[in-house]
Amino acid sequence: MSARRILIVGGVAGGASAAARLRRLDESAQIVVFERGPHVSFANCGLPYFVGGEIPRRDDLLLHTPDSLWQRFRLEVRVKTEVVAIDRQARTVTARDLTTGRQSVEPYDALILAPGSVPLRPPLPGLDRPGHFFVRNVPDVEQIRHWITTRSCQRAVVVGGGYIGLEMAEQLHRCGLAVAVVEALPQVMAPLDPEMAGWLHRELRAHDVALHLNDPVTAFEEPPDPATAQASVVCLRSGTRLPADLVILALGVRPEVTLARQAGLELGTLGGIRVNEHLQTSDPHIWAVGDAIEVRDRVTGQWTLLPLAGPANRQGRIAADNICGRPTRYEGSWGTAILRLFRLTAACTGANEKTLRRLGLPCEAIHLHPGSHAGYYPGAQPIAMKILFDPHTGRLLGAQAVGPEGVDKRIDVLATAMQAGLTVDQLADLELAYAPPFGSAKDPVNLAGMIAQNVRQGLVQHAQWHEIPRLDPARTFLLDVRTEAERQQGALPGSVHIPLHQLRQRLHELPRDREIIVACQSGQRSYFAARLLSQHGFRVRNLTGSYRTWSAAQESPAAAPPPSSSGNG
Amino acid sequence: MSARRILIVGGVAGGASAAARLRRLDESAQIVVFERGPHVSFANCGLPYFVGGEIPRRDDLLLHTPDSLWQRFRLEVRVKTEVVAIDRQARTVTARDLTTGRQSVEPYDALILAPGSVPLRPPLPGLDRPGHFFVRNVPDVEQIRHWITTRSCQRAVVVGGGYIGLEMAEQLHRCGLAVAVVEALPQVMAPLDPEMAGWLHRELRAHDVALHLNDPVTAFEEPPDPATAQASVVCLRSGTRLPADLVILALGVRPEVTLARQAGLELGTLGGIRVNEHLQTSDPHIWAVGDAIEVRDRVTGQWTLLPLAGPANRQGRIAADNICGRPTRYEGSWGTAILRLFRLTAACTGANEKTLRRLGLPCEAIHLHPGSHAGYYPGAQPIAMKILFDPHTGRLLGAQAVGPEGVDKRIDVLATAMQAGLTVDQLADLELAYAPPFGSAKDPVNLAGMIAQNVRQGLVQHAQWHEIPRLDPARTFLLDVRTEAERQQGALPGSVHIPLHQLRQRLHELPRDREIIVACQSGQRSYFAARLLSQHGFRVRNLTGSYRTWSAAQESPAAAPPPSSSGNG
Repeated sequence: MSARRILIVGGVAGGASAAARLRRLDESAQIVVFERGPHVSFANCGLPYFVGGEIPRRDDLLLHTPDSLWQRFRLEVRVKTEVVAIDRQARTVTARDLTTGRQSVEPYDALILAPGSVPLRPPLPGLDRPGHFFVRNVPDVEQIRHWITTRSCQRAVVVGGGYIGLEMAEQLHRCGLAVAVVEALPQVMAPLDPEMAGWLHRELRAHDVALHLNDPVTAFEEPPDPATAQASVVCLRSGTRLPADLVILALGVRPEVTLARQAGLELGTLGGIRVNEHLQTSDPHIWAVGDAIEVRDRVTGQWTLLPLAGPANRQGRIAADNICGRPTRYEGSWGTAILRLFRLTAACTGANEKTLRRLGLPCEAIHLHPGSHAGYYPGAQPIAMKILFDPHTGRLLGAQAVGPEGVDKRIDVLATAMQAGLTVDQLADLELAYAPPFGSAKDPVNLAGMIAQNVRQGLVQHAQWHEIPRLDPARTFLLDVRTEAERQQGALPGSVHIPLHQLRQRLHELPRDREIIVACQSGQRSYFAARLLSQHGFRVRNLTGSYRTWSAAQESPAAAPPPSSSGNG
Repeated sequence: MSARRILIVGGVAGGASAAARLRRLDESAQIVVFERGPHVSFANCGLPYFVGGEIPRRDDLLLHTPDSLWQRFRLEVRVKTEVVAIDRQARTVTARDLTTGRQSVEPYDALILAPGSVPLRPPLPGLDRPGHFFVRNVPDVEQIRHWITTRSCQRAVVVGGGYIGLEMAEQLHRCGLAVAVVEALPQVMAPLDPEMAGWLHRELRAHDVALHLNDPVTAFEEPPDPATAQASVVCLRSGTRLPADLVILALGVRPEVTLARQAGLELGTLGGIRVNEHLQTSDPHIWAVGDAIEVRDRVTGQWTLLPLAGPANRQGRIAADNICGRPTRYEGSWGTAILRLFRLTAACTGANEKTLRRLGLPCEAIHLHPGSHAGYYPGAQPIAMKILFDPHTGRLLGAQAVGPEGVDKRIDVLATAMQAGLTVDQLADLELAYAPPFGSAKDPVNLAGMIAQNVRQGLVQHAQWHEIPRLDPARTFLLDVRTEAERQQGALPGSVHIPLHQLRQRLHELPRDREIIVACQSGQRSYFAARLLSQHGFRVRNLTGSYRTWSAAQESPAAAPPPSSSGNG
């Protein structure tokens, strides 16, 4: 067995995963991991939870140390060491010890780049004043905790409503701070469509988190004195001024490609390192994994950037396999992701409607609000679900879900179904585990499949939440079939009320010269009504997701309807 | 639209589901549901939870009433009405009102049989004395509650360790009774393999539930006086005598086929109604669904009986579709099922190893014990997982999991993967939702796939828990690579201890003339050790599941090794 030398730049998710797999495949290889930061293999995704104390000890975040990796895997890990250059001809890198400044030239047979990403910096002055923090690594979150404690912070502003921003908002709230979230887009958590993000907006507001959507930061003004604000007065486009004792910058990340660019490796149009399906760069002796690379979006076929830990770990393993002569392919990513926000969980997989419409791909959306488990067993909570599929082929294109319970399970099942190539119709037949504490005889995923079957078989046509504000009463009759009690909690503007159980007797009150859109609370009873009415000769569509979906959409300011495409609108 | 007349025998899961779907497809049909019991569409699976008060009110179990079904769906529901004969020539049934005794002859265009199952009765006298109960319907559980309260019961004996038996044991324990579970087989929950059932045995014992395995009831003796026992003295084959104030009979069920047999419909070899893939019986005007029919086992291809609510509901819908001219197929069942038992959840899908070995089907088993979510986030708990696959094709054949958290999700993902035809290797690539509260960057399902890949690619060979007691030290060296602290909690008999981090320095202590079986706590570190050793030229196998799996198997008395078959043993 050849004692080849494999160097890895970056020792967190993808890099650490590649190193461990390499050792298991090749006991004799010399494996050296260079990590710029002070820690190797730390729990990147756990950083926000340390700030709020949910993860109590700093050491909980440190999954390995250079010593433990040497003991277990004979990995030579050099922390606080930056690789500053690659000589592709000579197959060497230059590594600089950041403590001593000493440089060394290190030969390699194979090189893996796992440098990760760098946080986006708004091009505004003031960010370098104390009290402004990114959330990249363990020292960052230690400093945040220290700042909060020593300065007795009371007001935090989180800039950016993505995963890290929202997780930080929750954790800072947990620390007792008054928190504001500032987001340039009209919604938080961009992978969700706006009506689904509405649930998160509502949850944030319910916890007194001030939400500034559609309102980018224009300045981080120096406060006149620490009593006004200990970090910045954060100024927004709308004119709002938010005094902040602490500013968290969570605007997202871009691939760290400094080294790759210097080495002349091919980059993609989105700024990530271009790799082939074996995760090889344009130099056949150099592989790249993790946040730094562009990957294929498996739904749309487009190149994309997907800075997530799961794919990074898999890529690390796959790069190691290929280096060791086991040809394995990374086919691309599905964008499965999840967020816990206070009582809610929000998760998604595949493409969202915004993206599909933008790309002009045919798609149909259904909304449903099934219970997390059997309604007769205590504690069932509705899950807001959205399923996207190709109306012609039935291909699953994406799914989103938000709710207090059971969201992760349904998204994982849907992600698995989508990756396996099941059609939306086939979801109806999945045999999932049912006992009252866990699900229903017809699981939410089954129900999604049944609804989609009904659409695809022409049993029902759907109207969408975003049509409601544009309805012309001369052309459309909006019918609410809920109970009186439900209606008193709020109703669709312009709707006429006939409870479902009276419908058969009151058909004469309905117009035959106009289309009827039927709504209820979740879209199920209105489906029953739609079937009833269409069999009585009425022109009818069911408002998918009905009142609940429409009402959540109201929480997203000016939630623009998606541009129409060939799907049903 | 023809006003056809459709009769349904049985108004619970499959029958109720068929009826509602029929109405949505055909507003003009006359749909009549006959239900022998006093309730229609009740929550069968919720019955045990009512006994312990988890479901507090009886009415929570009643999902619909004849009136609500008439209001919403114009279903004519006749409760306490038994269909006593079918005249297939005339296409009529004879229905008897059980209250008045009056009979009527009812014509049909289509007939659906959804009569369910009847509980198995041990052929022993004494069962008809007061205090002995089956758990079939709402009156049963009301009577159980009433009996417990009015008799101040203290000791319950549950005969049968299946789903209902175990759920009842938990609920009776919740009521403060001393509970014994009696099972003729050497394990509870037969769909699990014995080493997986071991976790349930441990959990029952931890809650002071007396467990009598491998010990069938031989008599229900009349107690000399109510102070001895208010129901029976339950006598077991072993000689054990259990005084019981309450006896629950939960020995399983058989298909209710009285009517079908009288009508001359074809029955299967297992005693269920034989149907085709459209759920049509041997009479083309009669369909059958639910517990009463035999279905194809999708893994083994064998006919099977699967009295579960999920399949019954889907079958009801499919029968309705076919009756309404929408040809839909029911391809068979996967046996996905789940149980909550105190702090644990146990679930399975597909075939178990016992069945696969008995049928001589090639299969390989892997065991793992991943955390329910990232270890650095509080509250992670190990899940005991077992995956079965065809070693030649990689086809997934079954999965079992037991643990306090996250079990339902992993089994649902595995069930979906299996049903979609993914190979075990493809589990490694599934992109599942990861944030610290929900999973790990490498989800348990991904880990299962990676382990199986390693086996299939020849990177590791596995030993199984049941080989341990038969090991010959002259031929096999059993190596424990855990820490000293772990070893002090208990160790494999005959194992030699070298902690993983000392292994490279102590290779000279290992024999080159014998096979080495390496074990750790879960099978992961021992895999690292196995890779290390095999690259150093040792003959080595990894004990899959390692100490945890072996230790759980010890909870199952005389857990016999499965008969060998073509898989790796």
